Amino acid sequence: MESETQGHPITCKAAVARRPGEPLVIEDIVVAPPNPREVRIRVICASLCGSDATFLKLQGGPPGYFPRILGHEGVGIVESVGKDVAEVTKGDVVIPIFLPDCGECTDCKSTKSNRCTNFPFRVSPWMPRDGTSRFTDLNGDIIYHFMFISSFSEYTVVDVANLIKIGPETPPDRACLLGCGVSTGVGAAWRTANVEPGSSVAIFGLGSVGIAVAEGARLCGATRIIGVDVNPEKYEIGKKFGLTDFINPKECGNKPVSQVIIEKTGGGADYCFECVGMASLVHEAFASCRMGWGKTIVVGVDKPGAMLSLSSYEVLHDGKTLMGSLFGGLKPKTHVPILLKKYMDKVLYTILQ
Amino acid sequence: MESETQGHPITCKAAVARRPGEPLVIEDIVVAPPNPREVRIRVICASLCGSDATFLKLQGGPPGYFPRILGHEGVGIVESVGKDVAEVTKGDVVIPIFLPDCGECTDCKSTKSNRCTNFPFRVSPWMPRDGTSRFTDLNGDIIYHFMFISSFSEYTVVDVANLIKIGPETPPDRACLLGCGVSTGVGAAWRTANVEPGSSVAIFGLGSVGIAVAEGARLCGATRIIGVDVNPEKYEIGKKFGLTDFINPKECGNKPVSQVIIEKTGGGADYCFECVGMASLVHEAFASCRMGWGKTIVVGVDKPGAMLSLSSYEVLHDGKTLMGSLFGGLKPKTHVPILLKKYMDKVLYTILQ
Repeated sequence: MESETQGHPITCKAAVARRPGEPLVIEDIVVAPPNPREVRIRVICASLCGSDATFLKLQGGPPGYFPRILGHEGVGIVESVGKDVAEVTKGDVVIPIFLPDCGECTDCKSTKSNRCTNFPFRVSPWMPRDGTSRFTDLNGDIIYHFMFISSFSEYTVVDVANLIKIGPETPPDRACLLGCGVSTGVGAAWRTANVEPGSSVAIFGLGSVGIAVAEGARLCGATRIIGVDVNPEKYEIGKKFGLTDFINPKECGNKPVSQVIIEKTGGGADYCFECVGMASLVHEAFASCRMGWGKTIVVGVDKPGAMLSLSSYEVLHDGKTLMGSLFGGLKPKTHVPILLKKYMDKVLYTILQ
Repeated sequence: MESETQGHPITCKAAVARRPGEPLVIEDIVVAPPNPREVRIRVICASLCGSDATFLKLQGGPPGYFPRILGHEGVGIVESVGKDVAEVTKGDVVIPIFLPDCGECTDCKSTKSNRCTNFPFRVSPWMPRDGTSRFTDLNGDIIYHFMFISSFSEYTVVDVANLIKIGPETPPDRACLLGCGVSTGVGAAWRTANVEPGSSVAIFGLGSVGIAVAEGARLCGATRIIGVDVNPEKYEIGKKFGLTDFINPKECGNKPVSQVIIEKTGGGADYCFECVGMASLVHEAFASCRMGWGKTIVVGVDKPGAMLSLSSYEVLHDGKTLMGSLFGGLKPKTHVPILLKKYMDKVLYTILQ
């Protein structure tokens, strides 16, 4: 069944980032029809991630582009599809995921990687396949995309490599959280770190990603889950999802947080997660993880150009590992459906609450 | 059977590092009898590792101590044992290993760690158990130990946690290479990186450790083993042990070595090893390893205080892992006997040649 709008531009409302650091502007924009292997969707729900704010604050020029439609978490209903799209059809409910998963390249076929080679993830102002935009304003001037998603618009165009079809029974205001935050946190514990049952975990920063790491660690069977945050209210929230301990760095006196964690765990946490997005905190997380087998996982996004500094001797001597976790190490089309099922089975609390 | 010297000091020759950067001095020293859980051995073979030279060059004051008996690779014959030593007896042939393996602590009982908790590895000037020295000069002044071994002496005292008994049929001039260099390299590929069959490997620095990494990678089934060294003669040597490719950074023009490796491997090596001991090279190794699953392993020892600098974005975005490898991640008493058997079975070439 064809929609009336199929093959035609759609004029709709969007929240446009016109200038660095300024409030988004609700305005009418024009969304072109999807090109081959692309899908135009009506966004029925979108949520806000810290990275949207980070990129709104960047100055103009790469990687900050203006005007731009931000937003990379959302749920939508397929309005129309471009040529050669068999995966979804009009009316399907979909979650767009910023990390492409073409299903055909070496990486997408591998169980070890979630970095698509055909469409490498970039915080790009364009569509992934042909490097152009589907958005214009009413003057006909280009508006840039964000992370291949741009969910802060009534309609957006997304590549099939970035789409997951979900059941219509899934509440969209829950499912959209799987587009980035919850998946990133739960995945970092589950897929990147591969947290072992009975292990200890320390989480620096209890925003939604940090809380989701706690939940991922709980689902993996960690028995000690220590949250670190300057806001003590986060402990009460975090307990629901798995936190067993809390450290407020403001109450540690002159003692480094790493020392407190080493004392609490008898040698350091098995897994430490940096979820604030401060490169300088990575060193503290690294110092907090256990000599011999501790892993430190970088989850938070710092500004482009931020450097990590680690002592060569510490890396060599201590038998520790440093890893990055993008989208929690999840392969979108393989693992997001598993998380959705866990939500429907009521074992994934972070999106139940 | 008691030896005549048992329970008495032994006067013998040692090569003593009297002053930073100066040649070792062959002189008479006095070696005290072993304390409980210690063993005095007659060193019948010793070999030189780069770290001996590194620590000879350090200025006085921690971690540089003078006068000191360097040397941490060797093979010896037990002369006498202290109280409560049942593991070895007079006449046994032993390899001392600088990394303690008490067999009783959480780490030694774990399959994941090779960092003994009871006797943490340090480049210590003392014996590990009681923090004193067994060496004096003829004036009665203390001479410091090195890495719990001090093999540049006719006699030395070593803790049982640092000793492995081997068969008397093992040629000592081969076995002593397992005390550090060959074990470190082979182990880094085998135990730390866990190199997979069919994978690609890049090795920065083809000294004995780098060559041993090549051999470890070959034994693990890697099919592409790229050596990087400014000395082209190393390729001919390295081929015997597993190298399939060679890059001389001096012949790369303006192209970074990482770019050459990315082109040769179609995206980057699965495993990269820094075996030079230059913190700045770690970044190049990290850049050379494959996005999605590449691992960079720090094997070389830089000066104390050297810092590694990595881009936060690169760590987060690229799905790469950074690991340190001390003694190749080997658990001395578990894995050195396995390497010895591989040598006796003629599959471990690095100590056959």
